[in-house]
Amino acid sequence: MRLSALYMPTLKEAPADAEVISHKLLVRAGMIRKLTSGIYTYLPLGRRSLDKIAQIIRDEMNAAGAQEIVMPMVQPGDLWKESGRWEAYGPELMRINDRHGRDYCLGPTHEEVVTDLVRGEVRSYRQLPLNLYQVQTKFRDEIRPRFGLMRGREFIMKDAYSFDKDMPGADASYASMYEAYNRAFTRLGLRFRAVQADSGAIGGSFSHEFMVLALTGEDTIVTCTRCEYAANLEKAEVRYAGEICEKGECPPLEEVSTPGTHTVAAVANFLGVHEEQILKTLLYDADGEAVAVLLRGDRELNEIKLKNLIGATSLELASPEQVTKWTGAAVGFAGPVGLLGVERIYADEEVLRSTNWVAGANKDDAHVRHLDIDRDVKLTGSADLRTVTLTDPCPACGGPIEMPRGIEVGHVFKLGTKYSEAMGATFLDEGGKEQLMIMGCYGIGVSRILAAAIEQNNDEFGIVFPPSIAPYEVALLTLGAKDEAVVAKSEELYQLLSAKGVEVLLDDRNERPGVKFKDADLVGFPIQLVVGGKALARGVVEAKDRRTGEKTELAVDNFEQAFDEFRSRVLDGWAL
Amino acid sequence: MRLSALYMPTLKEAPADAEVISHKLLVRAGMIRKLTSGIYTYLPLGRRSLDKIAQIIRDEMNAAGAQEIVMPMVQPGDLWKESGRWEAYGPELMRINDRHGRDYCLGPTHEEVVTDLVRGEVRSYRQLPLNLYQVQTKFRDEIRPRFGLMRGREFIMKDAYSFDKDMPGADASYASMYEAYNRAFTRLGLRFRAVQADSGAIGGSFSHEFMVLALTGEDTIVTCTRCEYAANLEKAEVRYAGEICEKGECPPLEEVSTPGTHTVAAVANFLGVHEEQILKTLLYDADGEAVAVLLRGDRELNEIKLKNLIGATSLELASPEQVTKWTGAAVGFAGPVGLLGVERIYADEEVLRSTNWVAGANKDDAHVRHLDIDRDVKLTGSADLRTVTLTDPCPACGGPIEMPRGIEVGHVFKLGTKYSEAMGATFLDEGGKEQLMIMGCYGIGVSRILAAAIEQNNDEFGIVFPPSIAPYEVALLTLGAKDEAVVAKSEELYQLLSAKGVEVLLDDRNERPGVKFKDADLVGFPIQLVVGGKALARGVVEAKDRRTGEKTELAVDNFEQAFDEFRSRVLDGWAL
Repeated sequence: MRLSALYMPTLKEAPADAEVISHKLLVRAGMIRKLTSGIYTYLPLGRRSLDKIAQIIRDEMNAAGAQEIVMPMVQPGDLWKESGRWEAYGPELMRINDRHGRDYCLGPTHEEVVTDLVRGEVRSYRQLPLNLYQVQTKFRDEIRPRFGLMRGREFIMKDAYSFDKDMPGADASYASMYEAYNRAFTRLGLRFRAVQADSGAIGGSFSHEFMVLALTGEDTIVTCTRCEYAANLEKAEVRYAGEICEKGECPPLEEVSTPGTHTVAAVANFLGVHEEQILKTLLYDADGEAVAVLLRGDRELNEIKLKNLIGATSLELASPEQVTKWTGAAVGFAGPVGLLGVERIYADEEVLRSTNWVAGANKDDAHVRHLDIDRDVKLTGSADLRTVTLTDPCPACGGPIEMPRGIEVGHVFKLGTKYSEAMGATFLDEGGKEQLMIMGCYGIGVSRILAAAIEQNNDEFGIVFPPSIAPYEVALLTLGAKDEAVVAKSEELYQLLSAKGVEVLLDDRNERPGVKFKDADLVGFPIQLVVGGKALARGVVEAKDRRTGEKTELAVDNFEQAFDEFRSRVLDGWAL
Repeated sequence: MRLSALYMPTLKEAPADAEVISHKLLVRAGMIRKLTSGIYTYLPLGRRSLDKIAQIIRDEMNAAGAQEIVMPMVQPGDLWKESGRWEAYGPELMRINDRHGRDYCLGPTHEEVVTDLVRGEVRSYRQLPLNLYQVQTKFRDEIRPRFGLMRGREFIMKDAYSFDKDMPGADASYASMYEAYNRAFTRLGLRFRAVQADSGAIGGSFSHEFMVLALTGEDTIVTCTRCEYAANLEKAEVRYAGEICEKGECPPLEEVSTPGTHTVAAVANFLGVHEEQILKTLLYDADGEAVAVLLRGDRELNEIKLKNLIGATSLELASPEQVTKWTGAAVGFAGPVGLLGVERIYADEEVLRSTNWVAGANKDDAHVRHLDIDRDVKLTGSADLRTVTLTDPCPACGGPIEMPRGIEVGHVFKLGTKYSEAMGATFLDEGGKEQLMIMGCYGIGVSRILAAAIEQNNDEFGIVFPPSIAPYEVALLTLGAKDEAVVAKSEELYQLLSAKGVEVLLDDRNERPGVKFKDADLVGFPIQLVVGGKALARGVVEAKDRRTGEKTELAVDNFEQAFDEFRSRVLDGWAL
């Protein structure tokens, strides 16, 4: 492609609403433009990278035996009512009425549609397993779309759905997708980790997320430095290695005045104790009912763990009004003894290992001390409920953990029979008996990968594209559009490389060298070739590895071999 | 691909709601499935054909210098309000409110979005011309979706938009797209005609439609048997070659009783005159006002011509109540003399060439005779207003015309400045003066082509796919899954052809020969290769040309050459 004929509107400045680097660089490099909040147009270069990402994913899906189809974007509300998600999904589901007033929605995901497709056709175990996928535009009406392609409303996903006749088959389908994802993300040139994840609202029993490692990631991952353990922070378990120590005698419960101490830190300071000696009592509204949770003053509750433990659909921190109703006091003085109308009290396992706590007195400006949970509190239950910290050991091997940041770009789920049961997707087994299909679903954020790759690979000059997804592999810069020798050599190299199947963008614009260098760096083509008058007079063209900045001179009379060698070095550098 | 691993659910029966052959065969061949009214899922084979269609179109668009982008499906209502189409478009525009109550719509077309994109970026004549296109899912909320992919609600289109700095540039862009379309439809293997067309609601000044010729087409085309003239029926002009004859003396206007004669035929019969001697008076509601049109009793009004002549936005045949209000009589007795409150009367040119008409008397059960338009009627104007008939001469050369049926699969428009003016898409010309961009838009119905190709190419056994868009070029049928020699030879040929880059579907299912033959015919793979035990014993495999039914035996010990020759014959037969 010749840059003179390419629509690549690069910009010096990022738009004011761009907060993250991928958003800034995608806009500046002329790859995307915002249409409206959370909705983007992909310009020619952006589309090329998207296509390459999608093609790599398709290759690996096909190799794993999945079959590509195209399901509709507009879906009938009736199917969502059948699965129960019409009510459950919330306002992220973009609902529409057609001209006849019938309910539709824009598909944020396609479990209902694919289950409807298969239940109508697949009737025998002989037709299973089946894995159908598509690469398609999806819509989720995010309340606060942001970060460009990282959290848009309209986005491109690869979604696959597997149907199996039994659990071993479903496990094999899951494993096959897990492996395909590993191969795809490796080919995409990304540094990533597959981590255990919570199954979330989509339902199901088991899942992994694929995280692109990047300092700017929204997610925190817990990985072991010693074993293979890796989990999303939401999922990461806390394990206690040692025995529970003797808790010792606890003096009688005693109320103390703690005026104006609304926070754990303030109470600790006022009473001269460590935060670890304070029992934090959190109050939640779980599906309309009160739930209290006890954990150590310096710990964070993992709400996902609580939600899964109590099986709540909706879980919200109690409002100040609810706190007052349930404690009889202002916020900051809740404690497990003397709550009003709070039937359920859960404790994080850790607090059962100690005694003699300071806790709120359920009374303004007052706390209690010498609280013994065994003696003073009637617990509903206890479990691992807190968020892991860096000082916790690996739950698998006890080794030290790390907590890098990540961007979720893929997710594999075992769905089980959630949808096949709700929607009646059955088949006749070998014995002629009707059985529910066992499903799995597998998503990859195609457009999000474009952003995540840039979050992971950029520098002060712009994007540093992994070669497999760069819009072009080589930028060939003609320095001096009026120097005939330079123009002729550029043209010759452009033809030569194109004929070899190398994707080259020839910068044949009548622009100053500085503009061409800046644009090539900004878009981040992996290899830059510079044809300049002086170097050419010496019989060389300059080659630059965008990632390392390494520059080499390639002799023009041995160009092809010199280029191949340079290219191999660049590609080898990307092989992680 | 092995059929044992392919999701190709063929059916013996077509669904009850399938009226046209392409709909029946696409469903029976396991290529599409209906999700809901006018909305379809493309199964693996359907998706393959769609992809091939899209790829050929992309190739030709790229070769013509158009650049591929991806615009969003969900569009802000504000842009449509800016262009004026939010009001004008009607209920086919699927409107949505997001969670904040803001107006959006599903894009039925992208003039607003692309104009918004370009007006923000292109500021100089040096950035023009520009031609941006996409292949994308669109939505139109058709009131009566039908005919499967022919008139769906969700469908796939290629839409391109050109921006030029002046008229000669815009003409060149139009011509370039026109040529690209001709090349694309030729490569798609379709028999088609480019015809002059009305510009319709999308606006603009000049357009051509590309029609796939098929007896089942919804459109009628007017083509000359002698010259290159071809037009959509809506657009086709009527030309009168000869001089206007002497009209002769007309006796005085006279009322006659014609009880119960509500139709032209009934009046002609009652009065014993030919229908050509009756002046038909049609009453229309044009944007709320009455308009009368006069034409010969045996002619049809072309409403598009009337609409364009009077510049109406909305044009509807008068209701019985309006007829009575405007004529004072029941339907069937309208005439041009004595209308009530009808300010505008237009005549089709043809009726000015004759006199002494029979017409309605604007009175129940009465007509007038001896009506002389020049003498008795105050015309607002006259023009070519009727629909062409087979007996009309070619408007270009006077030669005999034909009127084949066609399916519209492409449309090229000169838009002019309709959108650039409404939305302020300007640039600075060579003299630094602000100018409006001149636009064109160019659509191809990608999913409709799949249906149109089948409407044009089918027989009693199923689809007869043009090779360029068949899901696989070759179906390789293994007859006898338990005959080791047959299985081994099938496998060998499958590997050999795949290695040559031929797309082969190996029917390795454990099914009876009849099932395999029927499925291969139904899906319509251009070439069938049959590996059977008896033939193999004789050293041959059988090859069949799906289009002609011609069968040949290919010697296995010279297979590659024999296959290549047979394949060339098959492909040559498709070269039209």
